[in-house]
Amino acid sequence: MSEPLPTGATIGILGGGQLGRMLSVAASRLGLKTHIYEPGANPPAGDVAHRVTTAPYEDEAALTAFGNAVDVITYEFENIPTSALDLLETLAPIHPGRKALATSQDRLTEKSFLQDLGLQTAPFADIAGADDLEAALTTIGTPSILKTRRFGYDGKGQARIMSPADAPGALADMADAPAILEGFVDFTREVSVIGARGADGAVACYDPGENVHKNGILDTTTVPASLSPSQRTDAVLIAARILNALDYVGVMGVELFVTPKGLIVNEIAPRVHNSGHWTQNGCTICQFEQHIRAVAGWPLGDGKRHSDVVMENLIGDDVARVPEIAQTGAAIHLYGKAEVKAGRKMGHVNRVTGPAA
Amino acid sequence: MSEPLPTGATIGILGGGQLGRMLSVAASRLGLKTHIYEPGANPPAGDVAHRVTTAPYEDEAALTAFGNAVDVITYEFENIPTSALDLLETLAPIHPGRKALATSQDRLTEKSFLQDLGLQTAPFADIAGADDLEAALTTIGTPSILKTRRFGYDGKGQARIMSPADAPGALADMADAPAILEGFVDFTREVSVIGARGADGAVACYDPGENVHKNGILDTTTVPASLSPSQRTDAVLIAARILNALDYVGVMGVELFVTPKGLIVNEIAPRVHNSGHWTQNGCTICQFEQHIRAVAGWPLGDGKRHSDVVMENLIGDDVARVPEIAQTGAAIHLYGKAEVKAGRKMGHVNRVTGPAA
Repeated sequence: MSEPLPTGATIGILGGGQLGRMLSVAASRLGLKTHIYEPGANPPAGDVAHRVTTAPYEDEAALTAFGNAVDVITYEFENIPTSALDLLETLAPIHPGRKALATSQDRLTEKSFLQDLGLQTAPFADIAGADDLEAALTTIGTPSILKTRRFGYDGKGQARIMSPADAPGALADMADAPAILEGFVDFTREVSVIGARGADGAVACYDPGENVHKNGILDTTTVPASLSPSQRTDAVLIAARILNALDYVGVMGVELFVTPKGLIVNEIAPRVHNSGHWTQNGCTICQFEQHIRAVAGWPLGDGKRHSDVVMENLIGDDVARVPEIAQTGAAIHLYGKAEVKAGRKMGHVNRVTGPAA
Repeated sequence: MSEPLPTGATIGILGGGQLGRMLSVAASRLGLKTHIYEPGANPPAGDVAHRVTTAPYEDEAALTAFGNAVDVITYEFENIPTSALDLLETLAPIHPGRKALATSQDRLTEKSFLQDLGLQTAPFADIAGADDLEAALTTIGTPSILKTRRFGYDGKGQARIMSPADAPGALADMADAPAILEGFVDFTREVSVIGARGADGAVACYDPGENVHKNGILDTTTVPASLSPSQRTDAVLIAARILNALDYVGVMGVELFVTPKGLIVNEIAPRVHNSGHWTQNGCTICQFEQHIRAVAGWPLGDGKRHSDVVMENLIGDDVARVPEIAQTGAAIHLYGKAEVKAGRKMGHVNRVTGPAA
């Protein structure tokens, strides 16, 4: 384990959205600077970063200058092109590491990894074409979901198959991209664990939150989740097992389905996670600082929950409700995005509902 | 009252130290940008601000460009040259306003204002020269403290007078600056109230904190302070009376001495205050966000305390203890200052000691 990054050191962040913005703020608390790398102009994270590089992930000169200007590299999204990572890793350490990225970038690799760890997942099958799909539908059945193996998020790159007749249309939706068929999981609720692992191997997990989605996008996270004590323990142990197996450094989001047959891992995200935003107002050390502590080689902080919180995303026009929400006791977190678009995450609200039960 | 500042609007901040840094972070939570104006190079606030202007307060062109680029102006210190304020106020609203600045920039004006409000202060006298000092020492007595009327902070520009023989030396220390003699107040403890007043006239005060100084610099603030319920109420009412009398918009620090004869106002600071740093980990809405909400025309947030906190300043070499402190559950806040100097505020630590009692 290397020395913790000192005051004035710079953390490079790939991606300049709201997660990069909140990571930058957290880094500042530890006396660290951030340098954002983002193809799009005027990224939200740029408002609070020391430096911004605006360039595509294919620009080798820009990547090289960025890699040379920072002390460590992290990222706010997992779909970073492999060529960019190959170049950057010669210039600065990347946390979380390549194994975590490779695993989570591909749904098939991810599901296989989880199964190998002895964890439950939805039934799944590799789909290279119509024959694979036909065969898989006989074993997995319907309803099921066809998903691209890579580059999906917030419900994009997915097609539901309610009956075998839907198969050709669903396959066409994939546009020849490698895909995976996932069986439908009959769950009573979805929870997520935000786990962290330090460079020293220490693991700390936040209390699980209970997620409700709307139109395929996270709507609310409520903490504490409605779980039995043994489910709560299971959830945290699952997260810890994944973190250790990946020799992970940083914060990870682990989405779990609660079913009568136990907890089923839905997916993992090798980064700070929307369902962990409640920690900003529920814990002394939030997920963003915890991630920065880990990637900067600092000891993990105290992730104990002092308050119960309901986090609500502000999607698209929801942001028009901010003046009204500002009159309540709620904590508002806006991302500084000028343009309101349907389905766009504009901010979130943390409502503290009382001291931690 | 004007409309609340919308997403993407810019708050201009005069001064780029740690207070400006933490104000910038708070502004980002509300979707607002900050633009720092600071004479010194590489200011701590620059790491997390959208823009930085590096120029002296006498540079009219730089001030004009700054004033035209921002939607509202605030500041992190009270000793801004009057000429700069005269120019800036023609370009953008300044909060807190000129009355608060004029009052707090001059110890004599401040003490007279407080007395006129019916509040208790230390006995004081205007000192223009040796004759004034001799006369004042006969009424106020010793021990007492000679202070410059303007530009003092953290114990600078002050000389103790333990006996009349110290008078000539103390006067020489003032270097012909207008001064004030203050009688010594025999207090049992010092507390401060961080109060806020919104553009709509609403007032919200945080629970008083108890301050301990070391070498004339704040060392710790402990919340809750050891006060009786009636003292607690008095403290908050005093702060509210001051805020209303100044038609104040923003956060103010009010330092109070606890004495057998009641609460005596030591001084007021028309800005976020070191003794309010505990709010970052003790409240849902911290003093920095509360200040930004006020100057941006937003409703004030909920300043209720959810946790008890001990805040400790990291002065000079104290910062060497950070690796050890990082191993504890404490929240660390570093200011990103590269150079460690004796007496320099490098950061602070908030130790959450339990749920709010």
